[in-house]
Amino acid sequence: MSKDKVVFAATKPLVVHNSLTDKKEEFIAEHDSGLIGMYVCGPTVYSEVHLGNLRTFVVFDLIYRYFLSHSKTNVRYVRNITDVGHLEDDGEDRISKKAKIEKVEPMEVATRYTNDFKEQLYKLNCKNPSIEPIASGHIIEQIDVIKEIIAKGYAYESNGSVYFDIEKFRTKHEYGELSNRLIDDLISNSRKLKSQDDKKNQHDFALWKKADNEHIMKWNSPWGEGFPGWHLECTAMSQKYLGKRFDIHGGGMDLKFPHHECEIAQSVSIYNEGPANYWIHTNMLTNNNKKMSKSTGNSILLKDLLLPSKYNKQKPYSNHAVRLFLLSAHYRSVLDISIKALDDCEILAKNIIDNCFSLGDFKNFNKKSQVNYEEIENIAIKCQNALNDDFNTPKFFAEFTSFNKLIKKVVNGELNIDKKNHSDLMSFYQHFTRIILGFGYENLPVKEYTEKVGIDLLSLLLMIRDNFRQKADYETSDFIRDELSKLGIDINDKD
Amino acid sequence: MSKDKVVFAATKPLVVHNSLTDKKEEFIAEHDSGLIGMYVCGPTVYSEVHLGNLRTFVVFDLIYRYFLSHSKTNVRYVRNITDVGHLEDDGEDRISKKAKIEKVEPMEVATRYTNDFKEQLYKLNCKNPSIEPIASGHIIEQIDVIKEIIAKGYAYESNGSVYFDIEKFRTKHEYGELSNRLIDDLISNSRKLKSQDDKKNQHDFALWKKADNEHIMKWNSPWGEGFPGWHLECTAMSQKYLGKRFDIHGGGMDLKFPHHECEIAQSVSIYNEGPANYWIHTNMLTNNNKKMSKSTGNSILLKDLLLPSKYNKQKPYSNHAVRLFLLSAHYRSVLDISIKALDDCEILAKNIIDNCFSLGDFKNFNKKSQVNYEEIENIAIKCQNALNDDFNTPKFFAEFTSFNKLIKKVVNGELNIDKKNHSDLMSFYQHFTRIILGFGYENLPVKEYTEKVGIDLLSLLLMIRDNFRQKADYETSDFIRDELSKLGIDINDKD
Repeated sequence: MSKDKVVFAATKPLVVHNSLTDKKEEFIAEHDSGLIGMYVCGPTVYSEVHLGNLRTFVVFDLIYRYFLSHSKTNVRYVRNITDVGHLEDDGEDRISKKAKIEKVEPMEVATRYTNDFKEQLYKLNCKNPSIEPIASGHIIEQIDVIKEIIAKGYAYESNGSVYFDIEKFRTKHEYGELSNRLIDDLISNSRKLKSQDDKKNQHDFALWKKADNEHIMKWNSPWGEGFPGWHLECTAMSQKYLGKRFDIHGGGMDLKFPHHECEIAQSVSIYNEGPANYWIHTNMLTNNNKKMSKSTGNSILLKDLLLPSKYNKQKPYSNHAVRLFLLSAHYRSVLDISIKALDDCEILAKNIIDNCFSLGDFKNFNKKSQVNYEEIENIAIKCQNALNDDFNTPKFFAEFTSFNKLIKKVVNGELNIDKKNHSDLMSFYQHFTRIILGFGYENLPVKEYTEKVGIDLLSLLLMIRDNFRQKADYETSDFIRDELSKLGIDINDKD
Repeated sequence: MSKDKVVFAATKPLVVHNSLTDKKEEFIAEHDSGLIGMYVCGPTVYSEVHLGNLRTFVVFDLIYRYFLSHSKTNVRYVRNITDVGHLEDDGEDRISKKAKIEKVEPMEVATRYTNDFKEQLYKLNCKNPSIEPIASGHIIEQIDVIKEIIAKGYAYESNGSVYFDIEKFRTKHEYGELSNRLIDDLISNSRKLKSQDDKKNQHDFALWKKADNEHIMKWNSPWGEGFPGWHLECTAMSQKYLGKRFDIHGGGMDLKFPHHECEIAQSVSIYNEGPANYWIHTNMLTNNNKKMSKSTGNSILLKDLLLPSKYNKQKPYSNHAVRLFLLSAHYRSVLDISIKALDDCEILAKNIIDNCFSLGDFKNFNKKSQVNYEEIENIAIKCQNALNDDFNTPKFFAEFTSFNKLIKKVVNGELNIDKKNHSDLMSFYQHFTRIILGFGYENLPVKEYTEKVGIDLLSLLLMIRDNFRQKADYETSDFIRDELSKLGIDINDKD
């Protein structure tokens, strides 16, 4: 397989819907170096993530892969792990609360669910981010940011805590630009957290919280023992690893307010500008048209789809199918989960894998090629243009169908192809399936060796086939050989 | 499979070789709660780990599993990731240096090799530690430790750096107890690092290092911008997550000096005692009787064994076999790698998996059991006693052979067994294979669904079998069903 990046002749420029302006804008990189900086808000690691959460991370994996595939760009993708500071409505830290229930050290809770989160994304063929910083691991950096905000006059200390002063901020800057809400709405929507009576205004948010004696996760600071506010970590860590101004900031749409609004306020208060050029927000996954969430109890987990369960009628879906499903709607649209949609994705996934193998095994080249480069490139350009249009995946999948049809015709012998065009067809198909969509099928021959069941099933098949050959039933033995060949397993009968 | 912990009637108490006293000592838990604290020095994440490094972590995984399997104990296992402070002989930070060569941000280097390290241990069926703290994520904690050492009078600031004052320490405490070296040796062996001319004595070690302008990984501190010394992180993080005194501190034997010696000095200077009751050090892995190491260039990587390579004559070993090999010598002995030893482990691994499946499928119970509980428990006690003798794995494997012989006889029908004794035999066998040795075969049915090749091979087999059933060739179709059943895949023919 070609490791080179595919170069396109004439595609439209990338446009991105910027939540900040609510408009589609042409993407122009912040730095001339071609290094794209992307920051995505990761999970708060206190429980298992559900498919709705995973949708966001699969979408940004596609965007990450899109930029990585470009010949002229490289990407530093930073996705954080929140293990401190994300408070429940009762004012208690989510992870500390879970640790109390489970009677373990908070960091044990964080470690368990961080591992679990990463394992699920691994199963969904997501690439690891370049850097995956942890909130509790950046306390000094967060304290430094607080000091700067205080120095600028936009934060005040009160009883061992430090709050961001929104009224003061509003005298010079706009607040609420991203979520496009009126300040009165914001004020009335501010959550009343226990033990935050020391704020000047209800809607001021905490940069540093004083810790009670019973609080486990706390650190020394210029304001006494405490812990950072949730919004602060992303400002501190994005700035540390991507600089004060970078290209893309992403997350689920429920993070727009207050989380991202507060992040912007923090950056503006120090640098007079927000942290990112483009804000990208993913829409929600619904179950029977209701938002999937832990609180409503209608969450579906990845394992519910990958293992036999009521959600798949006891017939597990492949990881590829689930990934395709999570990409099947445009990221800004609501996606509703259904057996029908998942079944369709399973068929598409199987189709793609079949095409990859049969195209790879194809040998019947014909110099009088009925397939030419322009035709192949034309499909590729349409596919790429769909992605260039704000990562429009449903439009992409519609265009991508032409590839599958063409490959079926080539493989079935309906259309002649020569070696050169076959090679180009392979390159473009792999660009979209392996690099962009993330099909990890190139690992299969290795896994087949390392996975016991794979080996044993294969041994069993070979044993059965040998029986047929000994009985001179070559029709059946050839059938098994051909089926295995489609899976990329070639048998040489040397005897 | 039983999830309960096996309870033994009469095993010898656990004795552990304590590097501190160079004696075998009976293990007595530090806390009455039964919560064992274990801290193991993890990797410096600037390159791929080799099999010699992996040996250490597989050994401690066995020890972790040993304690987890005990009915009366629980374990908090902490293993750190060193991403800052580990200096090369030229005084440069290992990760910064690699980052310069690769032209990336140091944290990208650390992230890449941390992911790589964890993936390799996952392949070797190692359990995740309870907490996996990162050095750069605990700067405040390290600064707090330095302050305490300074307050006790055992450290001094010099030109923006802070050093541990070994001569001052020696006026009240012993230094060199663990590595059992004379102080003159230590002094002459101290590495001369660039830009450490500001020390009182050559053998003083850095707690905090002033950072040059070009230094990337640096933090604010009471002594100016800098970064922590390597030995400090383990004191700060073990204390944070396990308390000032815990049960076991482990690592490779090359860490005894200076790393662990310095850790002890740091703890003693604050608390008048070292951090751990038992120090466990693993011996080295050799290749042709020469120590495997990056610098000598004779390293073998895990992938060299799991993928076709010259090291396995193009015939990959299973992950189970490699794990068994790494445990085949006692952890305090040198282990030399060879094709013969790995081949033997492959046979043993296959034998264990076969026994697990055939014992699980066994149905020919006979009420006149020729196998009785005493016999089964007797083997189990001998196996457990081998482990209780300083985790003596070669002794364990010798005793374990009796289990394999007994199971073969039962499965072959040479010895009758009733349901009760079969169940006990299963429980004990699973205790040692699944829980202690870490055979992950219970995950196979899941993997089989999620791995494309597994699914397709299975579909193919089922399709072939259906053909036979339609032709009323039940002999062949039943043969396939029975073979699949041995692999743990049950088919229900409901029609």
